[in-house]
Amino acid sequence: MAQPKTLPAAENAHSYPLLIKQLLLSGPRYNPDQEIIYANRSRYTYTDLVERIHRLAHVLTDAGVKPGDTVAVLDWDTPRYLECFFAIPMIGAVLHTVNVRLSPEQILYTMNHAEDDLVLIHDDFLPLVEEVSDQLETVKGHIQLTDNDAPKKTQLHSHGEYEALLAKAKPCFEFPDFDENAIATTFYTTGTTGNPKGVFFTHRQLVLHTLVATGTLSHFDEQPLLRSSDVYMPITPMFHVHAWGVPYAATMMGVKQVYPGRYEPELLVELLKTHNVTFSHCVPTIMQMLMGTEGIKTADLSNWHVLIGGSALPKGLCDAATKMGISMYTGYGMSETGPLLTATHLKPADLELPPEQQTEKRIKTGVPVPMAEVEIHDEDGNPLPKDGVAQGEVVARAPWLTASYLKNPEKGEELWAGGWLHTGDVASIEPDNTLVIKDRIKDVIKTGGEWLSSLDLENLISQHPAVAAAAVVGLPDDKWGERPHALVVLNPGESADAEAIKSHLQGFVDNGTINKWAIPQGVDFVEDIPKTSVGKVNKKLIRDQLSNG
Amino acid sequence: MAQPKTLPAAENAHSYPLLIKQLLLSGPRYNPDQEIIYANRSRYTYTDLVERIHRLAHVLTDAGVKPGDTVAVLDWDTPRYLECFFAIPMIGAVLHTVNVRLSPEQILYTMNHAEDDLVLIHDDFLPLVEEVSDQLETVKGHIQLTDNDAPKKTQLHSHGEYEALLAKAKPCFEFPDFDENAIATTFYTTGTTGNPKGVFFTHRQLVLHTLVATGTLSHFDEQPLLRSSDVYMPITPMFHVHAWGVPYAATMMGVKQVYPGRYEPELLVELLKTHNVTFSHCVPTIMQMLMGTEGIKTADLSNWHVLIGGSALPKGLCDAATKMGISMYTGYGMSETGPLLTATHLKPADLELPPEQQTEKRIKTGVPVPMAEVEIHDEDGNPLPKDGVAQGEVVARAPWLTASYLKNPEKGEELWAGGWLHTGDVASIEPDNTLVIKDRIKDVIKTGGEWLSSLDLENLISQHPAVAAAAVVGLPDDKWGERPHALVVLNPGESADAEAIKSHLQGFVDNGTINKWAIPQGVDFVEDIPKTSVGKVNKKLIRDQLSNG
Repeated sequence: MAQPKTLPAAENAHSYPLLIKQLLLSGPRYNPDQEIIYANRSRYTYTDLVERIHRLAHVLTDAGVKPGDTVAVLDWDTPRYLECFFAIPMIGAVLHTVNVRLSPEQILYTMNHAEDDLVLIHDDFLPLVEEVSDQLETVKGHIQLTDNDAPKKTQLHSHGEYEALLAKAKPCFEFPDFDENAIATTFYTTGTTGNPKGVFFTHRQLVLHTLVATGTLSHFDEQPLLRSSDVYMPITPMFHVHAWGVPYAATMMGVKQVYPGRYEPELLVELLKTHNVTFSHCVPTIMQMLMGTEGIKTADLSNWHVLIGGSALPKGLCDAATKMGISMYTGYGMSETGPLLTATHLKPADLELPPEQQTEKRIKTGVPVPMAEVEIHDEDGNPLPKDGVAQGEVVARAPWLTASYLKNPEKGEELWAGGWLHTGDVASIEPDNTLVIKDRIKDVIKTGGEWLSSLDLENLISQHPAVAAAAVVGLPDDKWGERPHALVVLNPGESADAEAIKSHLQGFVDNGTINKWAIPQGVDFVEDIPKTSVGKVNKKLIRDQLSNG
Repeated sequence: MAQPKTLPAAENAHSYPLLIKQLLLSGPRYNPDQEIIYANRSRYTYTDLVERIHRLAHVLTDAGVKPGDTVAVLDWDTPRYLECFFAIPMIGAVLHTVNVRLSPEQILYTMNHAEDDLVLIHDDFLPLVEEVSDQLETVKGHIQLTDNDAPKKTQLHSHGEYEALLAKAKPCFEFPDFDENAIATTFYTTGTTGNPKGVFFTHRQLVLHTLVATGTLSHFDEQPLLRSSDVYMPITPMFHVHAWGVPYAATMMGVKQVYPGRYEPELLVELLKTHNVTFSHCVPTIMQMLMGTEGIKTADLSNWHVLIGGSALPKGLCDAATKMGISMYTGYGMSETGPLLTATHLKPADLELPPEQQTEKRIKTGVPVPMAEVEIHDEDGNPLPKDGVAQGEVVARAPWLTASYLKNPEKGEELWAGGWLHTGDVASIEPDNTLVIKDRIKDVIKTGGEWLSSLDLENLISQHPAVAAAAVVGLPDDKWGERPHALVVLNPGESADAEAIKSHLQGFVDNGTINKWAIPQGVDFVEDIPKTSVGKVNKKLIRDQLSNG
């Protein structure tokens, strides 16, 4: 069969690999004096950033790190972490961004599984690691990070303190070229069952994600988010999907950056105000906390643009934020997807709509970004129509998705069954290509041949005036496959019975919002809804209890 | 030696190649009803564009085009050409964008050299090809393009007319995946000597150029240039470096596009006005022509942003355009570089400056774009400082530069001597990373151990009130290496002698603008300055005549 014309290898000698070091070229060129700020502690320029990355590379190699080694970081969101985002992959090592919210046992598991060689660790996380240090199988040494004059004393093998080591290191490192498919970063994602699984990203993937993120974030019709005049502050942690990859994009564009350290709501709001932050990304719960602070009441938020992800943006939260002058957007992705798959896309006409109608568009998870293929598939892997009605599993292809799970090819094959990455989320796609996430696939209720979103049903039940919270799961049913079952928490002093809840839902059947199969078989009134350790509703536990109960 | 960690091949199965078809995903998703307009002839939507590209793929394969074949296009700037930008590479064939301004002999040379298999040809260019058709060695057939009801009669072997063939073709084509290093496009660049040389770009390179161009064009602090609300019209031809790659970027972002057909100044201005064009790219001579039209006097140009390239933007032209409300930017690149290497980068503080001071920044060729390395090197290949003083040859590395010349590896090795692409331009780089082009390296005058820009000297001579035009070349000199020699054209009715010109220049020596070696050894008064066929000063001819004279 005829083949496209490729280049003889000799002529191709000058194509060159996509490496993270190239992301560091333009920012310092555009804005050498632009600042990178660490909370209310310190500030330096992009010129300094470059020099510090070169010095850090010397510190790492002096500590014995070789290409192919893995370097773990346990830190708050700091400019130090940004330096690690560059220096560690740039010397050919793998950056392991350790999830510091895991238990010591889980941290131990991930550090052994990733085969960490060197650990950069902040004072605050020493106890976590000291507790399990005798079980660390591959770690040869530590570099200490501190926000005080001197680091805490530790019995771990320490090469010294980060700033002191940087100060002594040479300011110029010769960063090598190598294969763009070299692994640059890894981190672990936790499910409700089993051990954390490691995702990993190559230099090529991170460069491509950065380029697409930059074009996407600059494309918002209202205001591009990464210009010389913008100020960026992350409010999702740097250990989690590289703070959604935005630090790489912001650095490439030479944008002013503010790193908050730990996420204390009043501090975050103070930094927003002091530095006139124009762009952040955030999850709904943190956004809710920020909006409840004292400090925010006196803030001018009219230039603050916030990209929400992680879970669905509730309409009420979006409305409240909009009323405060904040421009709200949503994106969709996950650890496995690097993460960017979709983002809000408002057209000029949308911006003319009254705020409440804009909210409807802003809370949906947006349109797939350039270079990403996003479809919904039925259980047999067939693509479903983009009619806003059909629901299927969200699957994706794009040049920056994790290729597998680290040392777990079986789970990797499951993830990529049929050549598409399976997100485990259920959604519909509207005719204008907007993705609307409905549920986790394991929580969706398959009843009467239809898929019923447990989240949709919970929202409807919550609209009953007596209801404080609701959780809906599917229970096996011989005739229907599954039938919904609801757990309901009532507001203090209110009362309602199962019939009241069902007749409330019958109203939505009558007006065509849901069909009659959606009315729960059973309604239980409970004091609390079972939650997982990270605060998500534990539907697996609810199903188990109800099935056995 | 230790190596960075790469993926086992099995785990890497899901990384996927960068292909031009991916650039077509997002535009139609963002704005399916967005329009693509052909002058005052026709318009259709992005949804139509996708269908037409699929139909064109069937037309091409029905005409016998196989992966690896080359398809030539001779057309004005039309939506048809945009369809060819996608469909031809997307089936694995190579798009040869034929320079229709070349002579029939040169066109013949390029079509034989590129080994064109199929030719898409507009009525207006039939005579060019018919004249040499018996010498075309590889062409097997033609598809005719017309702007009338029926195409012109021709004795060339014709498969039929483009629109008629599209109408009959199936609307859905299965575009294959293949190696991202497959050649997607080729075109020829002409020098003052020798045959045209073919540059070529792969799918990977065009995707990367598009991603970087999108980020760059969206990054302008004044106004991003590729938003949903923008309207793009190219004013540099699509056969030349893919109209600087902007049609790919505009399509990826779903921007409204206006294709003007041929470049008639009054028509261009009419289209600007009718469609409220917000972004164009242009060379200075065409810009000058547009500003001289009747139509432009009644145009509101306050939303028009123009990126100037191809040759230096004269200060006077930039000032005049700014006074008309136009936002002027400059970029730098060449056929070999795909083309984007640098672009104007104005910071918020720059935008506060009065217009005349902004002009100083806008006429310089800007700062290197993300992912591009741009340096100036001395004759031994050593990098020179970015001090605004040192002058050297501009050399570049970036992931989208031509790897060589087509079937001309010797010239390719020259181009890439020492691992850097040699532009043949001389420049300085200012401390803020702005590139300032001084001259072509073959025209620069090496005198007294210093490099003297012939362009700078011509500008100074032109400031003498009696002088209409000047050309300066270097002639060999035993003591100084070279000494400048000037040809001067006087204004009608004016007179001046060599001493007058020299004493005019002495003023610039006295105020430190130039040093004394810059004063020409000889000054000749002539009626006309010799030009090349494309209107550039023919310095090679001048040097030859003076050396032999």
